[in-house]
Amino acid sequence: MKLATYSSADSRDGRLLVVSRDLARAADATTIVPTLQAALDRWDAVAPRLASLYDALNAGDLDGTFPFDPVLAESPLPRAYQWLDGSSYLAHGRLLDRAFNIPPIPQADVIPIMYQGGSDDFLPPHGDAPFASDEDGIDFEAEFAIVVGDVPMGADEATARDSVKLVLLANDWSLRALQPWEMKRGFGLIHSKPSTAFAPVAVTPDELGGAWRDGIIDLRVLTAWNGQPFGRPSGGAMDYRYAQLLTHAARTRRLRAGTIVGFGTTSEGQPDVVGSACITERRGFEIIQEGAPKTPFMKFGDTVKIEVLDADGRSVFGSIEQRVVPAQGAATP
Amino acid sequence: MKLATYSSADSRDGRLLVVSRDLARAADATTIVPTLQAALDRWDAVAPRLASLYDALNAGDLDGTFPFDPVLAESPLPRAYQWLDGSSYLAHGRLLDRAFNIPPIPQADVIPIMYQGGSDDFLPPHGDAPFASDEDGIDFEAEFAIVVGDVPMGADEATARDSVKLVLLANDWSLRALQPWEMKRGFGLIHSKPSTAFAPVAVTPDELGGAWRDGIIDLRVLTAWNGQPFGRPSGGAMDYRYAQLLTHAARTRRLRAGTIVGFGTTSEGQPDVVGSACITERRGFEIIQEGAPKTPFMKFGDTVKIEVLDADGRSVFGSIEQRVVPAQGAATP
Repeated sequence: MKLATYSSADSRDGRLLVVSRDLARAADATTIVPTLQAALDRWDAVAPRLASLYDALNAGDLDGTFPFDPVLAESPLPRAYQWLDGSSYLAHGRLLDRAFNIPPIPQADVIPIMYQGGSDDFLPPHGDAPFASDEDGIDFEAEFAIVVGDVPMGADEATARDSVKLVLLANDWSLRALQPWEMKRGFGLIHSKPSTAFAPVAVTPDELGGAWRDGIIDLRVLTAWNGQPFGRPSGGAMDYRYAQLLTHAARTRRLRAGTIVGFGTTSEGQPDVVGSACITERRGFEIIQEGAPKTPFMKFGDTVKIEVLDADGRSVFGSIEQRVVPAQGAATP
Repeated sequence: MKLATYSSADSRDGRLLVVSRDLARAADATTIVPTLQAALDRWDAVAPRLASLYDALNAGDLDGTFPFDPVLAESPLPRAYQWLDGSSYLAHGRLLDRAFNIPPIPQADVIPIMYQGGSDDFLPPHGDAPFASDEDGIDFEAEFAIVVGDVPMGADEATARDSVKLVLLANDWSLRALQPWEMKRGFGLIHSKPSTAFAPVAVTPDELGGAWRDGIIDLRVLTAWNGQPFGRPSGGAMDYRYAQLLTHAARTRRLRAGTIVGFGTTSEGQPDVVGSACITERRGFEIIQEGAPKTPFMKFGDTVKIEVLDADGRSVFGSIEQRVVPAQGAATP
């Protein structure tokens, strides 16, 4: 099943659509449930009805369908009650530790790194991404994320696995010039992690077919910067499975329905072979290889496109296509 | 105006009530707007109608009112899109730096400390607070918080000041045994900051009268542990005004309506004179005075009560009254 959210004058949470598998057409789903969060709040009751609508849409058996326009889409959850972003690719962290000559994060190889992200204001997948300054080290991070139902405190991996409802593709915008200082303070990332964007279409895990297996997502994440291919690392390189991220997140608290958990910037740790999913990884590689970074961070006017294709070359989640603009005077909703 | 939320079978966000100034009676507000978040989403349109209802309730001019029972209340926002907790009392940090012989947080005296907290699952103000283990250093933190409307990125202090809609009283539960390790990692606090609880009644700033002035809240926060008075530090000792916390939070991102911003554990840095609003501050003082902490953290079965009284001794927000219980088998909704 594929779901998306169009903006709505009535609700900051938008209105729910079902989108056809090929992303060509959509149908209003608000007669079943008004928003994606409302669907997640009572998923077991609502999901079968949404699935029936989805099947009818794919079969061409529905009246009142319309072309799906990703430009009109919000992030599937325009705002969420929780956004926890992990770091599942150890090769990424090791490369950066080496490049910047910093001690490894304590126990990063046995306990996932994770931060609590802001979730009140996700950006639409297509359009302007406003920033305070392009001197802050503006960087994209192309990554997978999952959306869960309720997860009890202290959940084991089997319980955690069963809680997964949806898979998302994210651009976890980062401000690299501000991050080291925030990390030194020890209280986490606020200035260095502005609003995240998600690709327009949320998909149930079964839509990934064989690429959803063993707790990983074995699909390449394609990133282009100003129209030039930048990276195509595979999600299959994940060291932490999603159930491990979830049991970590739920160790001392419940996770409530609609919680989004990210896998962190996709990485094979080989920017020379597959590129990378964020600029800082390429810069780290340049430091190791050449003694200094040569790739700059993004500037106002720059664009990024992030997409995932299935084995037949079809877009799975739709694309993220954003342009970096100054917050002052930005066309923000 | 005073507002509260009762639980509801229809919505995880509960249903909105208006509560009389003396906290004795309540009236259903859902004919105006169903939930507090929905009210915050369009505050300018909704607040005058809620205020009229509140005035009629206080005047005894309403039919269909009922006794307000805080035991039936949820946190005013049972879940929120953002919970940012600052640290406004420098004396607190200085005492802990000295006690634990740790270097000060970089620039804590000129830039507020703040962490992004989990906001998907606030606890009800009365009842069980479930924890995974009472070996984790369970500690209360009694503190003020504000709820804001939309705050633009890069807002100045005047804009930030105008965004404040409501004031809350919070218990920011903390797990002290887990906090140093998380801080060393640099990615913030997940395990050491489980679900927060808020007193049952949210109040508009005008309800605080002269105690709401110069960007601070000049009221004492009273805490009792297992029925014994533990602290009564004044919010008036704040070093960072709320507008400073807000401009810090909004430096690189917008804050959207319903964002909660906390002032951090209330402290005058004088546990021997006014007690403290968390156990760790008392323990720090014991280390400084006696070389070792003697007060233990909370154990299963312990209770905490947190309340704020006005100049006439009347409860402003209603009380937080929680009992520490094991998560396994806890009576969680």
